[in-house]
Amino acid sequence: MRILVVGASGTIGSEICKVLANHEIIRAGRNGLDVSVDTTSEQSIRDMYNQIGKVDAVVNAAGGANFASVSELTPELNERGIQSKLKGQINLVLIGMDYVNDGGSFTLTTGVMMDDPIPMGASAAMANGGVKSFVKAASIEMPRGIRINSVSPNIVQESWSKMEKYFAGFSPVPAVRVALSYKKSVEGAQTGQNYEVY
Amino acid sequence: MRILVVGASGTIGSEICKVLANHEIIRAGRNGLDVSVDTTSEQSIRDMYNQIGKVDAVVNAAGGANFASVSELTPELNERGIQSKLKGQINLVLIGMDYVNDGGSFTLTTGVMMDDPIPMGASAAMANGGVKSFVKAASIEMPRGIRINSVSPNIVQESWSKMEKYFAGFSPVPAVRVALSYKKSVEGAQTGQNYEVY
Repeated sequence: MRILVVGASGTIGSEICKVLANHEIIRAGRNGLDVSVDTTSEQSIRDMYNQIGKVDAVVNAAGGANFASVSELTPELNERGIQSKLKGQINLVLIGMDYVNDGGSFTLTTGVMMDDPIPMGASAAMANGGVKSFVKAASIEMPRGIRINSVSPNIVQESWSKMEKYFAGFSPVPAVRVALSYKKSVEGAQTGQNYEVY
Repeated sequence: MRILVVGASGTIGSEICKVLANHEIIRAGRNGLDVSVDTTSEQSIRDMYNQIGKVDAVVNAAGGANFASVSELTPELNERGIQSKLKGQINLVLIGMDYVNDGGSFTLTTGVMMDDPIPMGASAAMANGGVKSFVKAASIEMPRGIRINSVSPNIVQESWSKMEKYFAGFSPVPAVRVALSYKKSVEGAQTGQNYEVY
Protein backbone atom coordinates (compact mmCIF):
# COMPACT_ATOMS: atom_id res chain seq x y z
CA MET A 1 0.00 0.00 0.00
CA ARG A 2 0.95 3.63 -0.48
CA ILE A 3 0.49 5.29 2.93
CA LEU A 4 0.66 8.94 3.95
CA VAL A 5 1.78 9.37 7.57
CA VAL A 6 1.26 12.91 8.88
CA GLY A 7 3.31 13.75 11.97
CA ALA A 8 5.79 11.08 10.92
CA SER A 9 8.73 12.39 12.94
CA GLY A 10 6.93 12.50 16.29
CA THR A 11 7.27 9.97 19.08
CA ILE A 12 4.29 7.93 17.94
CA GLY A 13 4.60 8.86 14.24
CA SER A 14 8.09 7.43 13.94
CA GLU A 15 6.94 4.14 15.50
CA ILE A 16 4.00 4.05 13.08
CA CYS A 17 6.44 4.35 10.17
CA LYS A 18 8.41 1.40 11.56
CA VAL A 19 5.44 -0.94 11.99
CA LEU A 20 4.19 -0.01 8.49
CA ALA A 21 7.64 -0.36 6.90
CA ASN A 22 6.33 -3.19 4.71
CA HIS A 23 4.51 -0.47 2.72
CA GLU A 24 5.49 2.57 0.70
CA ILE A 25 5.42 5.38 3.30
CA ILE A 26 5.17 9.08 2.51
CA ARG A 27 6.26 10.95 5.62
CA ALA A 28 4.61 14.35 6.14
CA GLY A 29 5.24 16.92 8.83
CA ARG A 30 5.77 20.56 9.54
CA ASN A 31 9.52 20.38 8.93
CA GLY A 32 10.32 18.83 5.59
CA LEU A 33 10.47 14.99 5.60
CA ASP A 34 8.99 13.75 2.28
CA VAL A 35 6.35 16.49 2.14
CA SER A 36 5.63 19.54 4.31
CA VAL A 37 2.24 20.20 5.83
CA ASP A 38 0.73 22.42 8.49
CA THR A 39 -2.58 20.74 9.31
CA THR A 40 -3.97 23.96 10.79
CA SER A 41 -4.04 25.39 7.23
CA GLU A 42 -6.59 24.07 4.75
CA GLN A 43 -4.44 25.35 1.90
CA SER A 44 -1.38 23.53 3.22
CA ILE A 45 -3.41 20.28 3.40
CA ARG A 46 -4.62 20.82 -0.19
CA ASP A 47 -1.07 21.52 -1.36
CA MET A 48 0.18 18.34 0.30
CA TYR A 49 -2.45 16.14 -1.34
CA ASN A 50 -1.87 17.80 -4.71
CA GLN A 51 1.83 17.10 -4.37
CA ILE A 52 1.57 13.43 -3.39
CA GLY A 53 -1.45 12.27 -5.41
CA LYS A 54 -3.47 9.15 -4.63
CA VAL A 55 -2.79 7.00 -1.57
CA ASP A 56 -4.33 3.89 -0.02
CA ALA A 57 -4.23 5.14 3.54
CA VAL A 58 -3.89 8.38 5.46
CA VAL A 59 -2.59 8.12 9.02
CA ASN A 60 -2.42 11.17 11.24
CA ALA A 61 -0.33 11.40 14.39
CA ALA A 62 -0.07 15.21 14.41
CA GLY A 63 -2.04 17.77 16.37
CA GLY A 64 -1.81 19.50 19.71
CA ALA A 65 -3.76 21.42 22.30
CA ASN A 66 -2.77 23.77 25.10
CA PHE A 67 -2.55 22.52 28.66
CA ALA A 68 -4.36 24.89 31.02
CA SER A 69 -6.63 24.54 34.01
CA VAL A 70 -10.24 25.21 33.14
CA SER A 71 -10.10 28.39 35.29
CA GLU A 72 -7.25 29.69 33.15
CA LEU A 73 -8.39 28.32 29.80
CA THR A 74 -9.49 31.20 27.59
CA PRO A 75 -11.19 30.95 24.20
CA GLU A 76 -7.83 32.00 22.73
CA LEU A 77 -5.88 29.22 24.51
CA ASN A 78 -8.58 26.71 23.55
CA GLU A 79 -8.18 27.66 19.90
CA ARG A 80 -5.02 25.57 19.43
CA GLY A 81 -6.95 22.40 20.27
CA ILE A 82 -9.72 23.48 17.89
CA GLN A 83 -7.44 24.35 14.99
CA SER A 84 -4.79 21.65 15.40
CA LYS A 85 -6.00 18.52 17.18
CA LEU A 86 -9.64 18.81 16.10
CA LYS A 87 -10.00 20.62 12.77
CA GLY A 88 -6.52 19.67 11.58
CA GLN A 89 -7.48 16.00 11.71
CA ILE A 90 -11.00 16.36 10.37
CA ASN A 91 -9.82 18.52 7.47
CA LEU A 92 -7.29 15.83 6.53
CA VAL A 93 -10.36 13.63 5.95
CA LEU A 94 -12.70 16.16 4.34
CA ILE A 95 -10.06 17.53 1.97
CA GLY A 96 -8.34 14.18 1.43
CA MET A 97 -11.39 12.09 0.55
CA ASP A 98 -10.80 12.28 -3.21
CA TYR A 99 -7.12 11.38 -2.82
CA VAL A 100 -7.79 8.04 -1.12
CA ASN A 101 -8.23 5.02 -3.36
CA ASP A 102 -11.32 2.79 -3.21
CA GLY A 103 -11.19 0.58 -0.14
CA GLY A 104 -8.60 2.79 1.52
CA SER A 105 -8.63 4.22 5.01
CA PHE A 106 -8.12 7.16 7.33
CA THR A 107 -6.73 6.71 10.84
CA LEU A 108 -6.82 9.65 13.26
CA THR A 109 -5.58 10.15 16.81
CA THR A 110 -7.60 10.85 19.96
CA GLY A 111 -6.20 10.22 23.46
CA VAL A 112 -6.72 8.90 26.95
CA MET A 113 -7.53 12.32 28.44
CA MET A 114 -11.12 12.17 27.19
CA ASP A 115 -11.74 8.93 29.10
CA ASP A 116 -9.53 9.41 32.15
CA PRO A 117 -9.34 13.18 32.62
CA ILE A 118 -6.34 14.97 34.12
CA PRO A 119 -6.00 18.51 35.44
CA MET A 120 -5.28 20.99 32.62
CA GLY A 121 -6.55 18.51 30.02
CA ALA A 122 -9.99 19.90 29.15
CA SER A 123 -8.99 21.42 25.81
CA ALA A 124 -7.25 18.26 24.63
CA ALA A 125 -10.17 16.15 25.86
CA MET A 126 -12.57 18.33 23.87
CA ALA A 127 -10.58 17.74 20.68
CA ASN A 128 -10.24 14.01 21.36
CA GLY A 129 -13.96 13.62 21.93
CA GLY A 130 -14.80 15.56 18.79
CA VAL A 131 -12.54 13.39 16.66
CA LYS A 132 -13.84 10.16 18.20
CA SER A 133 -17.47 11.07 17.54
CA PHE A 134 -16.73 12.34 14.04
CA VAL A 135 -15.02 9.04 13.18
CA LYS A 136 -17.93 6.98 14.48
CA ALA A 137 -20.52 9.04 12.61
CA ALA A 138 -18.53 9.47 9.38
CA SER A 139 -17.78 5.74 9.16
CA ILE A 140 -21.39 4.88 8.32
CA GLU A 141 -21.36 6.87 5.09
CA MET A 142 -17.78 6.92 3.82
CA PRO A 143 -17.81 6.51 0.02
CA ARG A 144 -16.13 3.80 -2.10
CA GLY A 145 -15.47 1.39 0.76
CA ILE A 146 -13.17 3.84 2.52
CA ARG A 147 -12.83 3.08 6.23
CA ILE A 148 -12.10 5.45 9.11
CA ASN A 149 -10.87 4.76 12.64
CA SER A 150 -9.04 6.53 15.44
CA VAL A 151 -6.43 5.42 17.94
CA SER A 152 -6.59 6.66 21.53
CA PRO A 153 -3.12 6.40 23.08
CA ASN A 154 -2.31 6.46 26.74
CA ILE A 155 0.73 8.56 27.63
CA VAL A 156 3.72 6.74 26.10
CA GLN A 157 6.86 5.59 27.90
CA GLU A 158 9.04 7.66 25.57
CA SER A 159 7.36 10.89 26.81
CA TRP A 160 7.08 9.83 30.44
CA SER A 161 10.01 11.75 31.93
CA LYS A 162 8.70 14.99 30.43
CA MET A 163 4.96 14.34 31.01
CA GLU A 164 4.95 12.43 34.31
CA LYS A 165 3.99 15.53 36.29
CA TYR A 166 0.69 15.81 34.36
CA PHE A 167 -0.25 12.11 34.49
CA ALA A 168 -0.15 11.14 38.17
CA GLY A 169 -0.81 7.45 38.62
CA PHE A 170 -0.89 6.60 34.92
CA SER A 171 0.97 3.57 33.63
CA PRO A 172 2.63 4.61 30.36
CA VAL A 173 2.61 2.30 27.36
CA PRO A 174 5.38 1.79 24.80
CA ALA A 175 4.85 3.85 21.63
CA VAL A 176 5.28 0.70 19.54
CA ARG A 177 2.18 -0.80 21.15
CA VAL A 178 0.24 2.33 20.21
CA ALA A 179 1.66 2.13 16.68
CA LEU A 180 0.30 -1.39 16.25
CA SER A 181 -3.26 -0.08 16.46
CA TYR A 182 -2.62 2.16 13.47
CA LYS A 183 -1.38 -0.94 11.63
CA LYS A 184 -4.57 -2.75 12.65
CA SER A 185 -6.63 0.13 11.30
CA VAL A 186 -4.70 0.33 8.01
CA GLU A 187 -4.26 -3.38 7.23
CA GLY A 188 -7.42 -4.67 8.90
CA ALA A 189 -11.05 -4.30 7.88
CA GLN A 190 -12.75 -2.55 10.80
CA THR A 191 -14.31 0.89 10.55
CA GLY A 192 -15.79 3.42 12.97
CA GLN A 193 -13.57 2.22 15.81
CA ASN A 194 -11.58 4.11 18.44
CA TYR A 195 -8.77 1.79 19.52
CA GLU A 196 -7.95 2.45 23.15
CA VAL A 197 -4.32 1.62 23.93
CA TYR A 198 -4.41 2.11 27.68
CA MET B 1 -31.84 30.27 42.07
CA ARG B 2 -31.13 32.83 39.38
CA ILE B 3 -30.75 30.86 36.15
CA LEU B 4 -29.62 31.95 32.69
CA VAL B 5 -31.21 29.83 29.94
CA VAL B 6 -29.59 30.38 26.53
CA GLY B 7 -31.69 29.26 23.59
CA ALA B 8 -34.75 29.75 25.74
CA SER B 9 -37.26 30.06 22.91
CA GLY B 10 -36.32 26.80 21.18
CA THR B 11 -38.25 23.55 21.35
CA ILE B 12 -36.18 22.20 24.23
CA GLY B 13 -35.29 25.61 25.68
CA SER B 14 -38.91 26.57 26.23
CA GLU B 15 -39.58 23.28 28.05
CA ILE B 16 -36.49 23.90 30.21
CA CYS B 17 -37.93 27.26 31.23
CA LYS B 18 -41.18 25.53 32.22
CA VAL B 19 -39.58 22.84 34.40
CA LEU B 20 -37.37 25.48 36.06
CA ALA B 21 -40.24 27.93 36.58
CA ASN B 22 -39.78 27.66 40.36
CA HIS B 23 -36.64 29.80 39.87
CA GLU B 24 -35.83 33.27 38.54
CA ILE B 25 -35.18 32.64 34.84
CA ILE B 26 -33.27 34.97 32.52
CA ARG B 27 -34.11 33.94 28.97
CA ALA B 28 -31.38 34.57 26.38
CA GLY B 29 -31.44 34.02 22.65
CA ARG B 30 -30.56 35.51 19.32
CA ASN B 31 -33.83 37.42 19.06
CA GLY B 32 -34.48 39.52 22.11
CA LEU B 33 -36.21 37.70 25.00
CA ASP B 34 -34.70 39.02 28.27
CA VAL B 35 -31.21 39.41 26.81
CA SER B 36 -29.78 38.97 23.32
CA VAL B 37 -26.82 36.73 22.58
CA ASP B 38 -25.12 35.19 19.59
CA THR B 39 -23.05 32.37 21.07
CA THR B 40 -20.80 32.25 18.00
CA SER B 41 -19.42 35.65 19.07
CA GLU B 42 -17.18 35.87 22.12
CA GLN B 43 -17.96 39.56 22.41
CA SER B 44 -21.69 38.89 22.38
CA ILE B 45 -21.25 36.33 25.17
CA ARG B 46 -19.21 38.85 27.19
CA ASP B 47 -21.84 41.54 26.63
CA MET B 48 -24.60 39.20 27.80
CA TYR B 49 -22.81 38.29 31.03
CA ASN B 50 -21.94 41.94 31.69
CA GLN B 51 -25.58 42.83 31.24
CA ILE B 52 -27.05 40.16 33.52
CA GLY B 53 -24.41 39.91 36.26
CA LYS B 54 -24.07 36.95 38.61
CA VAL B 55 -26.19 33.81 38.27
CA ASP B 56 -26.42 30.46 40.02
CA ALA B 57 -26.74 28.37 36.88
CA VAL B 58 -26.14 28.66 33.16
CA VAL B 59 -28.13 26.32 30.94
CA ASN B 60 -27.49 26.22 27.21
CA ALA B 61 -29.93 24.77 24.68
CA ALA B 62 -28.60 26.74 21.70
CA GLY B 63 -26.22 25.68 18.97
CA GLY B 64 -26.43 24.10 15.56
CA ALA B 65 -24.45 22.24 12.92
CA ASN B 66 -24.96 21.68 9.21
CA PHE B 67 -26.41 18.42 7.96
CA ALA B 68 -24.32 17.05 5.08
CA SER B 69 -23.06 13.65 4.02
CA VAL B 70 -19.40 13.17 4.79
CA SER B 71 -18.69 13.16 1.03
CA GLU B 72 -20.25 16.60 0.72
CA LEU B 73 -19.10 18.01 4.05
CA THR B 74 -16.48 20.70 3.41
CA PRO B 75 -14.35 22.47 6.02
CA GLU B 76 -16.59 25.50 5.38
CA LEU B 77 -19.83 23.56 6.03
CA ASN B 78 -18.27 21.96 9.11
CA GLU B 79 -17.48 25.38 10.51
CA ARG B 80 -21.02 25.99 11.73
CA GLY B 81 -20.78 22.99 14.06
CA ILE B 82 -17.38 24.22 15.25
CA GLN B 83 -18.46 27.82 15.88
CA SER B 84 -21.99 27.24 17.13
CA LYS B 85 -22.58 23.84 18.71
CA LEU B 86 -18.99 23.31 19.91
CA LYS B 87 -17.23 26.62 20.62
CA GLY B 88 -20.46 28.49 21.33
CA GLN B 89 -21.13 26.19 24.28
CA ILE B 90 -17.57 25.95 25.55
CA ASN B 91 -17.13 29.72 25.40
CA LEU B 92 -20.29 30.13 27.51
CA VAL B 93 -18.35 28.24 30.20
CA LEU B 94 -14.88 29.78 29.72
CA ILE B 95 -16.17 33.34 29.55
CA GLY B 96 -18.94 32.78 32.08
CA MET B 97 -16.92 31.20 34.87
CA ASP B 98 -16.57 34.42 36.86
CA TYR B 99 -20.29 35.17 36.55
CA VAL B 100 -21.43 31.95 38.22
CA ASN B 101 -21.79 31.98 42.00
CA ASP B 102 -19.98 29.50 44.27
CA GLY B 103 -21.65 26.10 44.07
CA GLY B 104 -23.40 26.99 40.82
CA SER B 105 -23.52 24.99 37.61
CA PHE B 106 -23.26 24.90 33.85
CA THR B 107 -25.41 22.56 31.77
CA LEU B 108 -24.63 22.13 28.05
CA THR B 109 -26.28 20.14 25.26
CA THR B 110 -24.87 17.25 23.24
CA GLY B 111 -27.09 14.83 21.30
CA VAL B 112 -27.89 11.27 20.30
CA MET B 113 -26.08 11.50 16.96
CA MET B 114 -22.70 10.92 18.58
CA ASP B 115 -23.86 7.60 20.03
CA ASP B 116 -26.28 6.39 17.36
CA PRO B 117 -25.01 7.98 14.14
CA ILE B 118 -27.26 8.94 11.26
CA PRO B 119 -26.39 9.83 7.65
CA MET B 120 -25.42 13.51 7.31
CA GLY B 121 -24.79 13.77 11.04
CA ALA B 122 -20.96 13.70 11.23
CA SER B 123 -20.54 17.42 11.88
CA ALA B 124 -23.13 17.48 14.65
CA ALA B 125 -21.65 14.30 16.14
CA MET B 126 -18.21 15.93 16.18
CA ALA B 127 -19.55 18.90 18.15
CA ASN B 128 -21.51 16.66 20.52
CA GLY B 129 -18.48 14.50 21.27
CA GLY B 130 -16.29 17.53 21.85
CA VAL B 131 -18.74 19.02 24.34
CA LYS B 132 -19.23 15.71 26.17
CA SER B 133 -15.49 15.18 26.63
CA PHE B 134 -14.90 18.80 27.61
CA VAL B 135 -17.58 18.52 30.30
CA LYS B 136 -16.12 15.30 31.70
CA ALA B 137 -12.57 16.72 31.81
CA ALA B 138 -13.49 20.21 33.01
CA SER B 139 -15.62 18.83 35.84
CA ILE B 140 -12.60 17.61 37.78
CA GLU B 141 -11.13 21.07 38.20
CA MET B 142 -14.03 23.52 38.20
CA PRO B 143 -13.39 26.21 40.80
CA ARG B 144 -15.52 27.18 43.83
CA GLY B 145 -17.68 24.05 43.78
CA ILE B 146 -19.12 24.88 40.36
CA ARG B 147 -20.52 21.80 38.62
CA ILE B 148 -20.79 21.06 34.90
CA ASN B 149 -22.92 18.50 33.03
CA SER B 150 -24.39 17.98 29.59
CA VAL B 151 -27.69 16.59 28.39
CA SER B 152 -27.78 14.39 25.30
CA PRO B 153 -31.30 14.50 23.84
CA ASN B 154 -32.76 12.02 21.39
CA ILE B 155 -34.78 13.63 18.61
CA VAL B 156 -37.86 15.12 20.29
CA GLN B 157 -41.50 14.45 19.43
CA GLU B 158 -42.11 18.16 18.81
CA SER B 159 -39.57 18.11 15.91
CA TRP B 160 -40.50 14.70 14.59
CA SER B 161 -42.64 15.71 11.60
CA LYS B 162 -39.82 17.90 10.29
CA MET B 163 -36.90 15.61 11.21
CA GLU B 164 -38.36 12.14 10.70
CA LYS B 165 -36.65 11.76 7.31
CA TYR B 166 -33.22 12.03 8.96
CA PHE B 167 -33.92 9.73 11.93
CA ALA B 168 -35.16 6.47 10.43
CA GLY B 169 -36.15 4.00 13.11
CA PHE B 170 -35.68 6.40 16.03
CA SER B 171 -38.30 6.64 18.74
CA PRO B 172 -38.66 10.34 19.58
CA VAL B 173 -38.97 11.49 23.18
CA PRO B 174 -41.10 14.35 24.54
CA ALA B 175 -39.13 17.57 25.00
CA VAL B 176 -40.38 17.79 28.57
CA ARG B 177 -38.56 14.54 29.40
CA VAL B 178 -35.35 16.04 27.99
CA ALA B 179 -35.95 19.22 29.98
CA LEU B 180 -36.10 17.24 33.23
CA SER B 181 -32.44 16.29 32.83
CA TYR B 182 -31.46 19.95 32.80
CA LYS B 183 -33.45 20.33 36.02
CA LYS B 184 -31.57 17.35 37.48
CA SER B 185 -28.28 18.97 36.53
CA VAL B 186 -29.22 22.38 37.96
CA GLU B 187 -30.97 21.31 41.17
CA GLY B 188 -29.03 18.10 41.82
CA ALA B 189 -25.43 17.60 42.91
CA GLN B 190 -23.83 15.52 40.15
CA THR B 191 -20.98 16.79 38.00
CA GLY B 192 -19.13 15.58 34.89
CA GLN B 193 -22.20 13.73 33.65
CA ASN B 194 -23.75 13.45 30.17
CA TYR B 195 -27.41 12.63 30.70
CA GLU B 196 -28.63 10.50 27.82
CA VAL B 197 -32.37 10.96 27.23
CA TYR B 198 -32.85 8.30 24.57
